[in-house]
Amino acid sequence: MTFPVVGMVGGGQLARMTHEAGIPLGIRFKLLSDTPQDSAAQVVGDVVVGDYRDLDTLREFARGCDVITFDHEHVPTEHLRALEADGIPVRPGPDALVHAQDKGVMRARLDAIGVPCPRHRIVSDPQDVAAFAAEGDGFPVVLKTVRGGYDGKGVWVVDSAEEAAEPFRAGVPVLAEEKVDYVRELAANVVRSPHGQAVAYPVVESRQVNGVCDTVIAPAPGLDESLALHAEEMALRIAKELGVVGHLAVELFQTRDGRVLVNELAMRPHNSGHWSQDGAITSQFANHVRAVLDLPLGDPRPRAKWTVMVNVLGGDYPDMYSAYLHCMARDPQLKIHMYGKDVKPGRKVGHVNTYGDDLDDVLERARHAAGYLRGTITE
Amino acid sequence: MTFPVVGMVGGGQLARMTHEAGIPLGIRFKLLSDTPQDSAAQVVGDVVVGDYRDLDTLREFARGCDVITFDHEHVPTEHLRALEADGIPVRPGPDALVHAQDKGVMRARLDAIGVPCPRHRIVSDPQDVAAFAAEGDGFPVVLKTVRGGYDGKGVWVVDSAEEAAEPFRAGVPVLAEEKVDYVRELAANVVRSPHGQAVAYPVVESRQVNGVCDTVIAPAPGLDESLALHAEEMALRIAKELGVVGHLAVELFQTRDGRVLVNELAMRPHNSGHWSQDGAITSQFANHVRAVLDLPLGDPRPRAKWTVMVNVLGGDYPDMYSAYLHCMARDPQLKIHMYGKDVKPGRKVGHVNTYGDDLDDVLERARHAAGYLRGTITE
Repeated sequence: MTFPVVGMVGGGQLARMTHEAGIPLGIRFKLLSDTPQDSAAQVVGDVVVGDYRDLDTLREFARGCDVITFDHEHVPTEHLRALEADGIPVRPGPDALVHAQDKGVMRARLDAIGVPCPRHRIVSDPQDVAAFAAEGDGFPVVLKTVRGGYDGKGVWVVDSAEEAAEPFRAGVPVLAEEKVDYVRELAANVVRSPHGQAVAYPVVESRQVNGVCDTVIAPAPGLDESLALHAEEMALRIAKELGVVGHLAVELFQTRDGRVLVNELAMRPHNSGHWSQDGAITSQFANHVRAVLDLPLGDPRPRAKWTVMVNVLGGDYPDMYSAYLHCMARDPQLKIHMYGKDVKPGRKVGHVNTYGDDLDDVLERARHAAGYLRGTITE
Repeated sequence: MTFPVVGMVGGGQLARMTHEAGIPLGIRFKLLSDTPQDSAAQVVGDVVVGDYRDLDTLREFARGCDVITFDHEHVPTEHLRALEADGIPVRPGPDALVHAQDKGVMRARLDAIGVPCPRHRIVSDPQDVAAFAAEGDGFPVVLKTVRGGYDGKGVWVVDSAEEAAEPFRAGVPVLAEEKVDYVRELAANVVRSPHGQAVAYPVVESRQVNGVCDTVIAPAPGLDESLALHAEEMALRIAKELGVVGHLAVELFQTRDGRVLVNELAMRPHNSGHWSQDGAITSQFANHVRAVLDLPLGDPRPRAKWTVMVNVLGGDYPDMYSAYLHCMARDPQLKIHMYGKDVKPGRKVGHVNTYGDDLDDVLERARHAAGYLRGTITE
C-alpha cells in the first residue's frame, strides 16, 4: 500500500507518543534522533541518529519522507527553508514555526492581529526594565529570552532593576512582560490541516509547579462557557492567521477580571493535550499526524466528563518499577504513560491519565499515582 | 530504568498492536519476525529477522528477553520446552499452548474438566466419519485437522463419507464434530497472569463470513445475563485449569436450546477482542502485556454502551489510501486500525472500531467504513 511516510525530527516523548498514535493509522514513521537511547528511538522502527542542526543530516533524513514534522521547535529556520526549497513539505512551516521559536516575533504578530497579550516590549538592559516597570504598574516584571526557553527555563520574575542583570548575559534579546494577576492558567489546543480544516479541544486548566506543568484538568472546571468559546475561537484564529499546520497549544492566563491573555504558543503536541490520549475521541497525537498529512481530522470531543493528567517527575529513586506495579494494582483504571527515560530528579519521565464522573476522585487518583511513582507518596 | 523486555515471536498484526499497547507501559519490546516487511516489523525498533522454527534462532532471540510471548501458535512445543529449560519464561507456556495448537488435545482436556463441547471424536478415515455421523444425528459432520488450521482453513463440512476424503490427505489426525445447530457465535475473552489474577471482558457476538471473522459486537446484543456470566466463568475456568498466562479467547456456539459450547481456543490477543482497543478501559493487548509480565491487570470493562469491530479485507484495488481518506472525512469518530500489509483479495489488512449508544448506528458506521475500504461500497 502506498501509505505516506512521516518524518519526525526529535526523539523525545512527543515523538514517541506520535509514533504510537500513527501505528493504527497505518502510516510509516521515520525518526531523526540525537541518540539511539532517546525516548522515541527505543520504540520506532526506522531511526536515523544524527544532529538536526546539520543541514546535510536533515536533507539525507528527509529523503523518502512525504512530510517533515517536529518533536521540538529547535530546528533552525534556514534549514527548514532549505528543505522546503528541496520540495519537502515542512509542517508546521518555518513562517508559522518562528512564532513558537521567538517570543518577540510571537508578541509582535499577536499584537498585529489583535490577540490580547500581557503588556510587553523588548528591553535592552536593566535600566530599560525599570523604565518598562514604570510605564505600567511597576515591579515585579517577567523577563524572557526570546529564544531557547522551555519549562520555566529562560524565564525570570524580577522585583528590581538590580535583579534584572542575569537574563541579558546570554546575549539574546530579552522580552519584558507585566506579571499578570491571573486566577489560573488555561490552554486552548487546536489542530489545523493544510487545506484549512481545524478542530478545537475543550479548553483545559493547567497547573504549574516551579514553572513546570504538573496537572491538567479537561475541561477546565467552572469555566464560563462564553469565555471557553472565546478562547477556542482565539486559538483557531491564531492557527489560521499564523498558518499553523498540525497541533497548536495556546497557553493562556485567565485574569481576575475575566479575560484571557496569551502566555505562550507551542506548535506540536503539547503537555496540556496529553489528557486527550485517554480522554478524547481522537488524541492530539493522532490529529497531529492527520493534520500534517492533510488527512481529515478526527473528533476532538471528550469521552469522559472529567479527565485529569498529572506529570510523573523523577524523584530520588532511579527505579520506578515497583512503584509502577503498586499503582497498577491500586487503580486498575489508571492509564500510565512512561517515556522510557532514565530517572533524574525533576525530569519528566511519564504521565498518568485518569477519567470519570467525579472530579475529586479523578484528581485524587491521578495525583496519588504520580506522587507514588515519584516517591513523594509512600502509602 | 529497569523496565523489562518482552520478546514477541511473530511479526503479524497482533504483534504490531501489542507493541502499540506496550509503548505507554514503558516496557521494551523485541520482535522475532519472518521478514523486515511484516506488519509488526515495520513499527518496532528492536527486530530480529529469523525463522521461529529454528531453535538456535529462538535461543539467540530470547537472550536478553525477560519473557517470550507469541503472535501465533505455531512455535514447536519442543522449542518452547528448550527455552524454558534455558530459564526463559514462556507465556503462555507449552503445557497450556498445546491446547491451542492441537484440537484433539484441547477437546480431550475440555471433556476431562467438564466443559461442554460439540460431540466429537478423532476419526481414522471416511468410513469412520460415516460411523461418527451414525452415532449422532447423521450428516453434516464437521472435520478438522487437529493442527495447522486458522480462519476456516483446515475445516470441512461434509454431507457424506464420499466428501470426507480431503481432510485425511495431509496425514494429520482428523477430528470429527457434530454440526452444531447454533443461533450465533459468541466469544469470551479473559486474561490471566502467572500469580492467578484474571479479568473477563464482556462476552461478544462474533459474526463470520466464509469462515473468517467479519463483525464483532460488544457486548453480545440481547444475551441473557446468566448465560453471559456462565460463559465468562467457563472461560476463566479454562484459563485456570489449562494454566493459561496472557489472553485467552474462547470461541463459543450459542445453541438454539440456550447452551454455550466451546468451538475453539486461542491463547493470544484475538480478533474477537480488537473492539477493546477503543471500547474497553484496558485493551486486550495492554492486558496481554501486563499478564505475561505478571503486572496487575487493567480494568476490562467497556467504555461505551456498544462497540463494533468490522474487519477490513483486501479487495480488488491494491491502494486503499483514497478510500481511507474518504472514511475519515465521512466519520470523524471512526477508529481505523491499518496493519501496513499489502492488499490481497480476502486478506485481513485492518479493522475499524466504532462505538456509541445506538447499536444500529454504530453497526452501520463500522460496516460502511470497512466496506468502503474494501471497495464493496462505493458511495
